[in-house]
Amino acid sequence: MDRRSFLKTSALGGSAAAATTLAAPAYAQGKRTLTMVSTWGRGLAGVHDSAQYCADQITALTDGQLTVELKAAGELVGAFEVFDAVAAGQADMYHAVDYYFMGQHPALSFFSQVPFGMTFQEFNNWYYHDGGIELADDLYSIFGLKSFAAGNTGPQSGGWFNKEINSPEDFQGLKFRMPGQGGQVLGKLGASVQNLPGAEVYQALASGAIDGTEWIGPWADEKAGFQEITNIYYTAGFHEPGPVLSLTTNREVFDSLTTAQQAAIEQTATASNLWTMSLFMANNSAALQRLQSGGVKVMEFPNSVWDAFGKASQEVIAEPMDDELYKTIYDSYMDSIASSAAWISRSEGTYTEQRNRVLGL
Amino acid sequence: MDRRSFLKTSALGGSAAAATTLAAPAYAQGKRTLTMVSTWGRGLAGVHDSAQYCADQITALTDGQLTVELKAAGELVGAFEVFDAVAAGQADMYHAVDYYFMGQHPALSFFSQVPFGMTFQEFNNWYYHDGGIELADDLYSIFGLKSFAAGNTGPQSGGWFNKEINSPEDFQGLKFRMPGQGGQVLGKLGASVQNLPGAEVYQALASGAIDGTEWIGPWADEKAGFQEITNIYYTAGFHEPGPVLSLTTNREVFDSLTTAQQAAIEQTATASNLWTMSLFMANNSAALQRLQSGGVKVMEFPNSVWDAFGKASQEVIAEPMDDELYKTIYDSYMDSIASSAAWISRSEGTYTEQRNRVLGL
Repeated sequence: MDRRSFLKTSALGGSAAAATTLAAPAYAQGKRTLTMVSTWGRGLAGVHDSAQYCADQITALTDGQLTVELKAAGELVGAFEVFDAVAAGQADMYHAVDYYFMGQHPALSFFSQVPFGMTFQEFNNWYYHDGGIELADDLYSIFGLKSFAAGNTGPQSGGWFNKEINSPEDFQGLKFRMPGQGGQVLGKLGASVQNLPGAEVYQALASGAIDGTEWIGPWADEKAGFQEITNIYYTAGFHEPGPVLSLTTNREVFDSLTTAQQAAIEQTATASNLWTMSLFMANNSAALQRLQSGGVKVMEFPNSVWDAFGKASQEVIAEPMDDELYKTIYDSYMDSIASSAAWISRSEGTYTEQRNRVLGL
Repeated sequence: MDRRSFLKTSALGGSAAAATTLAAPAYAQGKRTLTMVSTWGRGLAGVHDSAQYCADQITALTDGQLTVELKAAGELVGAFEVFDAVAAGQADMYHAVDYYFMGQHPALSFFSQVPFGMTFQEFNNWYYHDGGIELADDLYSIFGLKSFAAGNTGPQSGGWFNKEINSPEDFQGLKFRMPGQGGQVLGKLGASVQNLPGAEVYQALASGAIDGTEWIGPWADEKAGFQEITNIYYTAGFHEPGPVLSLTTNREVFDSLTTAQQAAIEQTATASNLWTMSLFMANNSAALQRLQSGGVKVMEFPNSVWDAFGKASQEVIAEPMDDELYKTIYDSYMDSIASSAAWISRSEGTYTEQRNRVLGL
């Protein structure tokens, strides 16, 4: 297991230059203020709400012994600098999706999103009860971090396009915003892929710097306003069927807390995991109807495009396999998804199909 | 809204006889011990684990200021007496599925399970973000209770039979264990339905007192040992696609707690909701394979049986509609399920179908 090679290019070195410009966290006997940085601008529906929920709940559960102050993207550090800032101890925790930091370690994809990978429930089966948490600890401890799954957006939409996608060839030359391994997949199909923080996507689309973008789903996308710029919207996507929002702490800070304070962070993350998922899923249907009423054309990718997504996804996922920790986590993840998928299809899949057929839902 | 008619037959009266035999909860300045009773025997996989998780987490989050002592079914009161005991203040909280107490109010089905009703995710969309919690408060306050969704078993299996079910007529005369409105549905199909606590089902099946039973799913069913008695097992069922485990407190006790202690109970319930669901879903696939290897015949109901389930379910659900609160909750529940189902089908449904097709999962 070659962890050293990742340390060389890790946050610990990368953030040294930034350290002097950041305030040290406030420590006091008894009461403590913890700083949470995030990748989300304050206007971003759902994801910023999730970060705020986590901050508020930790504060409430500890009766203010820990007071968590949320700094949105850009308020203390930039959206993509939060991993480095917390690893270096300039902030105490961050709220993000960790594919933004795959430059630090490719296995962060398993704790954020693998294209053609786990849905929300499949991930949680693995994470809580099939080895996921233990493997997360192995991975994040390399960077002096302790991470918790703390939210999910649910299945993300294929995104906004300036033309219809009728074959895999339609991605060639397309300037498209998509983070993580999903973006690498579109790269294999010939797209010119960019990774932009959420708060910068609208302007990039409006200016023509990108031809299209995925963001989250109907509710968050509507709030972001993409329907003001383009009107072709693909619902189901291959790239993020259940992306995990992480609440990640500096490990030294976490270890310095009392057992009850540590429990407050862990339980808040677990509660937020479900609360956040349900927030997105409760709002998407009505938002999609509003988008359609407003003239958005709602589409689904044809099978030939799904086939190309699947083939390229398998290639992208296999690429980092010479890293031993990546391969260990990959094997565990793939065993678990096969097991979960079989049962979910047989139980919830069959039930939902029969219910929707009989009731006409 | 006629709440008085329900109060007449409620726990408050019904439990008076039992009150003298129960110890009063221990109250002390500062530290407090709270008693949790449950409908689960200690040997019942998943459901007892969920109750224990809740007890342990509340204790951990409050640093022992609240110490929750779990009394399994029969240790303080019987499985079906927990609602009355907590309403009367002889215990502080219970862990159960609330269709066991539908004699107190028919609307408890919406916070446990409606046949042909919500899955886990559909329920949580409604509960946390679409009016469910507020309606639960209206309902449980009638009985002096404050309730929290605190777990889910995932979609329950159709159950164990001593013959194959090829048409709706095969239920006629069948002695079958099924609680809640699902049991009423089988009654409409001519079955003789019994409602037994989990810990009593094995013996009833072994003795021939019942011909068949549903319990939970492959993992919990295997632990209960039903495969030792019969070997025809139907996977997807109509009756409990996502039954909610509730953590329900005596409202006076809850109101007497500090804000942080109240937050500890609420956050524990939310975290347990996801943790428990994932526990069942992570274990079912391997258990089903073991059952099949051991000679269990795994079946699915034909469409004609699903059609009959659906028709009878609609009739059963409509019966209590002259109660105003039931109708209010029904309307909210049905609006929400239609909205959730539409988006889930379009997003997770399409994704899962395409992924499983392309990857052969």
